[in-house]
Amino acid sequence: MAKTIIGIMGPGDGASAEVRDRARKIGRLAAEKGWVVLTGGRASGVMQAASQGAKEAGGLTIGVLPGADLTGTSGFIDLPIPTGMGNARNAINALSSSVLIAVGMGPGTASEVALGIKSGKGIVLTSVSESALAFFKEIGGEKIRHAASAEDAIGETERLLSGP
Amino acid sequence: MAKTIIGIMGPGDGASAEVRDRARKIGRLAAEKGWVVLTGGRASGVMQAASQGAKEAGGLTIGVLPGADLTGTSGFIDLPIPTGMGNARNAINALSSSVLIAVGMGPGTASEVALGIKSGKGIVLTSVSESALAFFKEIGGEKIRHAASAEDAIGETERLLSGP
Amino acid sequence: MAKTIIGIMGPGDGASAEVRDRARKIGRLAAEKGWVVLTGGRASGVMQAASQGAKEAGGLTIGVLPGADLTGTSGFIDLPIPTGMGNARNAINALSSSVLIAVGMGPGTASEVALGIKSGKGIVLTSVSESALAFFKEIGGEKIRHAASAEDAIGETERLLSGP
Amino acid sequence: MAKTIIGIMGPGDGASAEVRDRARKIGRLAAEKGWVVLTGGRASGVMQAASQGAKEAGGLTIGVLPGADLTGTSGFIDLPIPTGMGNARNAINALSSSVLIAVGMGPGTASEVALGIKSGKGIVLTSVSESALAFFKEIGGEKIRHAASAEDAIGETERLLSGP
Repeated sequence: MAKTIIGIMGPGDGASAEVRDRARKIGRLAAEKGWVVLTGGRASGVMQAASQGAKEAGGLTIGVLPGADLTGTSGFIDLPIPTGMGNARNAINALSSSVLIAVGMGPGTASEVALGIKSGKGIVLTSVSESALAFFKEIGGEKIRHAASAEDAIGETERLLSGP
Repeated sequence: MAKTIIGIMGPGDGASAEVRDRARKIGRLAAEKGWVVLTGGRASGVMQAASQGAKEAGGLTIGVLPGADLTGTSGFIDLPIPTGMGNARNAINALSSSVLIAVGMGPGTASEVALGIKSGKGIVLTSVSESALAFFKEIGGEKIRHAASAEDAIGETERLLSGP
Repeated sequence: MAKTIIGIMGPGDGASAEVRDRARKIGRLAAEKGWVVLTGGRASGVMQAASQGAKEAGGLTIGVLPGADLTGTSGFIDLPIPTGMGNARNAINALSSSVLIAVGMGPGTASEVALGIKSGKGIVLTSVSESALAFFKEIGGEKIRHAASAEDAIGETERLLSGP
Repeated sequence: MAKTIIGIMGPGDGASAEVRDRARKIGRLAAEKGWVVLTGGRASGVMQAASQGAKEAGGLTIGVLPGADLTGTSGFIDLPIPTGMGNARNAINALSSSVLIAVGMGPGTASEVALGIKSGKGIVLTSVSESALAFFKEIGGEKIRHAASAEDAIGETERLLSGP
């Protein structure tokens, strides 16, 4: 009965326009697949863009928020989950997603990818540097996939979902 | 855009048949109001009953789970959020609910009610002892409401939602 | 090799002078027993008073803080543990203490007592109302002890530490 | 009044003998500096070795444990803090340490380094791959230091402590 939840992670304020465009497209395509889109929930960067994309396709969105109330929540979030736990909520993002898609990279996103690896999750990286890809493949092995486009990210996610 | 999330809390394995019946009815009535029902997510006691009731009325259910994976999740949960945080997840239950309804009482439920008071949430208590009611009114004041029936619990929740 | 850690919990800003005096005395007596004193770490109420008492007797103090940095930490804390988890850190207070002593009562303290019961900890209540005592005995049974004085709180703690 | 707490992080079961030797030496040198050594607390890998080293030099050790009780705690831990939060406790490790030293690398350690960067902490990496160093310098900048030996790790830590 549980729906498939896909986490779309990435930088907040530091996200480039290219990264935000890709996140929005991935959000839209994920919703079209019938997946619930889970993000960090704030009205910023990849969180905002991915949630917006998902809503444009009529999807359902969950935001696992660092704060204790709804301040700063994206208007594209249907189900805000304020945790009051700051960055410790990154562990929940990793555990609650069947597959994690990281669009762009930063310290918070890196922690989510690392925690996802630790929890055995499949992970798709897109719009990340060569260094990021090399490092995460080194510690994550086969579970780490690279995607060159939004469509490719969805394809890799489907393969990881049908795993192993 | 965010939906209204109502937390229905209560004992797991120790819940009596009467408490489970009331939780199921409250879950059903809450879903009929269009509220999302949030519980602790396990296939046991009030969590199970409230989620079942909500699904019977075609509602949406979130389960904020203590474990790191889906083991033991209620089959009536649409959106499982495994936290891997044990009882620390009780703080998330309190923060994520606009109003908390406690059906029956136990140590876990008491922690959720106390954390809800700490966070300024409105709280409805039903099927609880005189001692529980007296204590929580003492520390929670006007935000603590008693309900004598499932219907009454929904009525009190509506009044708390329309606040202040 | 692990030292014995005793949690001393209680209200922050709302603590009365009587409650603070008792917390300070309990902190002092606990340190004289060789116990490490663990509190919520802030420079306020019972946290401040218990830590001060422990330091007056040359003891060691741990503060498990709700915030992400040292802002507002009591000057009587040797080992500040900022969690950034807000009230979810109350679960850590409960788990990290061999016995919990609650001096006075409020919503945060109530959550710690409830989480302590849930985790099977022995708990000493002092300077609390009749309602609080009645309620916690109802959900905690034999593990809940009442103490009429600081000395009595230490005696009950010793009995709880020596098992069974 | 608060003591200086240095976090020593690294792999558990997967730690090589070389990594464990270095962690033990760093733990010893850190304790000789008067720093409190904080680890993940388990009787395994870098956590065990760093704590052992610190105790050999008469230091004080804190272990922030993933589990809810003391099962699996290193015998070299003076102050066990069971969190019951699984990998979410990695955020606490990052916040509670004035400087983080990572000896070796794995998914858990990577999450701690990333969360440390996110929280603005200075970080020393030793016994890590070129990929790890390149990636963390990319997302962490000046706050990331490389150390070629245990002595060098202590020197970098001192420089970071005297910051900025």
